[in-house]
Amino acid sequence: MVDEQSHASHPPAVADSKGHKFNPGFTQAVIDATGPKATPRIRQLTTGLIRHLHDFARENELTVDEWMTGVELMNAAGRMSDAKRNEGQLLCDILGLESLVDEITYKLASTAADEPTATAILGPFYRHDAPKLPMGSCIVSKEINEQGDRTWMHGTITDFRTGQPIENAVVDVWHTAPNGLYEQQDPDQPDMNLRGRFTTAKDGKYSFYCLRPVPYPIPFDGPAGKILQALDRHAMRPAHIHFLAS
Amino acid sequence: MVDEQSHASHPPAVADSKGHKFNPGFTQAVIDATGPKATPRIRQLTTGLIRHLHDFARENELTVDEWMTGVELMNAAGRMSDAKRNEGQLLCDILGLESLVDEITYKLASTAADEPTATAILGPFYRHDAPKLPMGSCIVSKEINEQGDRTWMHGTITDFRTGQPIENAVVDVWHTAPNGLYEQQDPDQPDMNLRGRFTTAKDGKYSFYCLRPVPYPIPFDGPAGKILQALDRHAMRPAHIHFLAS
Repeated sequence: MVDEQSHASHPPAVADSKGHKFNPGFTQAVIDATGPKATPRIRQLTTGLIRHLHDFARENELTVDEWMTGVELMNAAGRMSDAKRNEGQLLCDILGLESLVDEITYKLASTAADEPTATAILGPFYRHDAPKLPMGSCIVSKEINEQGDRTWMHGTITDFRTGQPIENAVVDVWHTAPNGLYEQQDPDQPDMNLRGRFTTAKDGKYSFYCLRPVPYPIPFDGPAGKILQALDRHAMRPAHIHFLAS
Repeated sequence: MVDEQSHASHPPAVADSKGHKFNPGFTQAVIDATGPKATPRIRQLTTGLIRHLHDFARENELTVDEWMTGVELMNAAGRMSDAKRNEGQLLCDILGLESLVDEITYKLASTAADEPTATAILGPFYRHDAPKLPMGSCIVSKEINEQGDRTWMHGTITDFRTGQPIENAVVDVWHTAPNGLYEQQDPDQPDMNLRGRFTTAKDGKYSFYCLRPVPYPIPFDGPAGKILQALDRHAMRPAHIHFLAS
């Protein structure tokens, strides 16, 4: 992906008499191009982004060829993205940025110094309108004869400060079929297969049948796959069931 | 572009007893996922990129909505990009990254502590096979009756250490028509209009006729235009003629 030889052939940059290898006023000049009508938040975010991008390039003496490799990866990610697939989001996922902004956002939204259940990313496969099902029923569609292990999931939704059960909490769950695909990725699965919403009674308890979840690879045929390969990382997610309680 | 209100409504994150607002081991864990077969340069670049991306997100308490705005801009840039247009490159251009990696690369390639002529980016409109023309001739295509001011460009290619003229230097030049478009962007211009290559004799001198260059806007109908608008920046490049001597 990045040509080791072409970078190694460059001699190290020579610092001037003041210790600067590169134009020391350049980054501030780009930041100062921002006009007076930019909102404070836009100004803050772009200032931070420009500083970090430039520091990254200078610290690592990033070459034009290496930068263009990155540009081509980002352009290819955009071209692959549509209503069913978000490759740009997947790139951020493998670099940890998605999980980090999730942690930041929900720490900010919570007034508690600690939280009983860590948040996790919503992921690209959530659907808003999963069927409302009776407590204890099964999220495997009746239209198919699914080949996985039936699994009984159960628990209680409680207030983490008082420990009391919560009535009328909605537990929204979804997971993949044994082939690793969510129903909207897979023409062989019925609509809304392996999705359901359950509303708790006074006891706060929820329960449902599903399939035993399986580990599955993230899409590996795009820029995210190329980066994982270059980093010598595997493409598997651990087996999991998504839970969203509200 | 970024919703000022939604960020303002978040309370500031609360630090734990050790002063950490967010999981302090997270960034290192992402870096440590890199496997043993990654090359040293790939490892260096992705480590630096992950650290700067995460520091940027934490320092600015970047929210999920703000991050997704960025992802959608990058995906839209990729979808607009093809053989004739590179919107990802344009995004880097307006953030100063393109000029910076150009400076870094050519400083690294040069053994001189200073250079007589600052490098400039090649830009997306260079073509390798511009016509070789006799010294002193005109790069305006004879097939059209161009409406600009004729301009006489001339100079000498010299060795910056000895000051001696350089023979057989190739001066490759290109610029836009008065409508701000390069010939390959504009179906009304003949092929290779306003491009030429000139080879110096023993005196190192070059000269040619062209049109007086005009300022022109960068493409404003994509993500780069949205960012410039959000930053209250104009989209004009100063009038210029591209020179490449080799």
